[in-house]
Amino acid sequence: MNARHPSIDAAILREFVTTVFVRLGMSDADAAIEAEVLVWANLRGVDSHGVLRLPRYLALFEQGEVKPRPTMRFERETAVSAILEADHALGPIAMTRAMDRAIEKARAAAIGWVAVRDTAHSGAVGYYALRAAAADMVGLVIVTSVPNMAYHGARAAGVATSPIAIAVPGATHAPLVIDMATAVAALGKIVQARNAGTALPAGWALDRDGNPTTDAAAAVLPLPLGGAKGAGLSLLFECVTSLLVGNPIISATLGEAPGDRRHRQNAVAVAIDIAAFTDVAGYKANVDALAAAVKALPRAAGCDEILVPGERGDRILVARHRHGIPLPPGTLRGLIEIAARLAIAMPPLIDAS
Amino acid sequence: MNARHPSIDAAILREFVTTVFVRLGMSDADAAIEAEVLVWANLRGVDSHGVLRLPRYLALFEQGEVKPRPTMRFERETAVSAILEADHALGPIAMTRAMDRAIEKARAAAIGWVAVRDTAHSGAVGYYALRAAAADMVGLVIVTSVPNMAYHGARAAGVATSPIAIAVPGATHAPLVIDMATAVAALGKIVQARNAGTALPAGWALDRDGNPTTDAAAAVLPLPLGGAKGAGLSLLFECVTSLLVGNPIISATLGEAPGDRRHRQNAVAVAIDIAAFTDVAGYKANVDALAAAVKALPRAAGCDEILVPGERGDRILVARHRHGIPLPPGTLRGLIEIAARLAIAMPPLIDAS
Repeated sequence: MNARHPSIDAAILREFVTTVFVRLGMSDADAAIEAEVLVWANLRGVDSHGVLRLPRYLALFEQGEVKPRPTMRFERETAVSAILEADHALGPIAMTRAMDRAIEKARAAAIGWVAVRDTAHSGAVGYYALRAAAADMVGLVIVTSVPNMAYHGARAAGVATSPIAIAVPGATHAPLVIDMATAVAALGKIVQARNAGTALPAGWALDRDGNPTTDAAAAVLPLPLGGAKGAGLSLLFECVTSLLVGNPIISATLGEAPGDRRHRQNAVAVAIDIAAFTDVAGYKANVDALAAAVKALPRAAGCDEILVPGERGDRILVARHRHGIPLPPGTLRGLIEIAARLAIAMPPLIDAS
Repeated sequence: MNARHPSIDAAILREFVTTVFVRLGMSDADAAIEAEVLVWANLRGVDSHGVLRLPRYLALFEQGEVKPRPTMRFERETAVSAILEADHALGPIAMTRAMDRAIEKARAAAIGWVAVRDTAHSGAVGYYALRAAAADMVGLVIVTSVPNMAYHGARAAGVATSPIAIAVPGATHAPLVIDMATAVAALGKIVQARNAGTALPAGWALDRDGNPTTDAAAAVLPLPLGGAKGAGLSLLFECVTSLLVGNPIISATLGEAPGDRRHRQNAVAVAIDIAAFTDVAGYKANVDALAAAVKALPRAAGCDEILVPGERGDRILVARHRHGIPLPPGTLRGLIEIAARLAIAMPPLIDAS
């Protein structure tokens, strides 16, 4: 696995990242949650949402766009619903708290629906949906953000690449989990192509003038998945999250000069108690049967194996737990700079073999 | 609008369709609901889900796959959740009842989550989501069905083109509503290309051997939206609907010979009471502001106007209310045959001008 890059043990990386966030002023417990979610993304191969982001987080703390010690509170609470006012908390702190409250509510009332107001950088949102699956529930998460994707028919950012995640528990099979942006391809993949010097497939992105481009160096604006579909879905996600907590992002942001656009996110964490609807053991057995049926489908030419949602990440996780998390040059450089700046010892690496 | 085809007045068509379903054994009230939903699809230009389907419905009744007088009942009811056992009712009968119950629950408990077991042909599912929007709620609907779409990497049907619909109310603006299949393009669009003799865009469909094709005459299997994304989303929709009501469709169907595959659907109707989260008037004003901000985005080359979700259908509805619903030859032939077979007088048409 990526033998070209030095690697780092997941537990050691987690400890380092925890220390970084403690130095930035977070509580030990919150810093540990943030480290857990970032390193989890790396473990599953979602490196674009992993420790690659640390320098950006440092900047957010320095600019005051994220609070290390937010005063989070639940508002308008009912047996099934609530708003978590996140007070500019980093996403993992707000989202784990929101999902845990949703799970509690669902345990007692069948459904838990917790809306989150004003958080930041929620990371790999499948993590929060899987928290519900681990509690024998269906987990559903939607996060919205500042416009960074072209709206269908527009030559400028009009909506965000807002992701949706859904997770369900299996019996012997791992949970099925989807975590997908509403863009054709995440901005991270465009950056990867830029770094690799390869062309983009047609239909992925626009350049800064709003014209279609396959030049990764010129691409700045991802296009929505399926044109009107992805754009419309993202727009309705704004209505299901931001507008429901009275904190519009898109209409507010589009009225501001680009330089004034403060990073912010809203979200919703939903838990559905399987036991309120059907037998839990039967449900999980049916998830296993579904995964098996789909994996046994006849394969298209060039397809070696049919994968179910979550399976690729599960495999990478096993490999990276064993061999470490590879650190490409840019990511490693970021860690070294942060360590120097915060006077934290760089953790030991596993040499590239 | 489609001056080449004869048209029919919406109210007259609705009356005709109601009579058809009464003759098929449905109650007056249920027949009127079925007619309302089918003609609504035609009014909004979603002709693939309109009266075009009548001959197919007749066949379903004759084969006993749909019950004209189903014994529907709510099971496992809580303050926020329930299962509606639909007993092979046609979708509109089950889905309006499910959404109305979800709205009732949400009014009292913030959220209403009603799962639907064993219905058939739910039609244009945006209709049910809009029912919630009309009650000042967010409406969310997902419907799953027998596999009719290629799973990503497979050369055979493994999932369904299962749609999701979300609707929210505006203040002076019409509700925003998205109603989208998880396929790149609905089967109806492939049939349209077949009838028109035009080629399909690459990436839309597979032929009967599971190979990619742009020949509309050979295309039988739609491809999922965004490959793994649409396939995974559809798979998780099965988990959120069918498995939650203990009635798996995909794993059960894939184990059967194609000839044994009985049509069936499961679904969920969710209502979220806006008033439980925020000020309703403020919410609706924010929906208007969002629509206005998106419509004012700079347009891409070749785009005359940026549309928000639901806008195209709203305009077609106004035009078809005024000028009638156009009936292409195949649709008209179906109506004439059904009228003859059930001994119902053909309703008056508006001549093509």
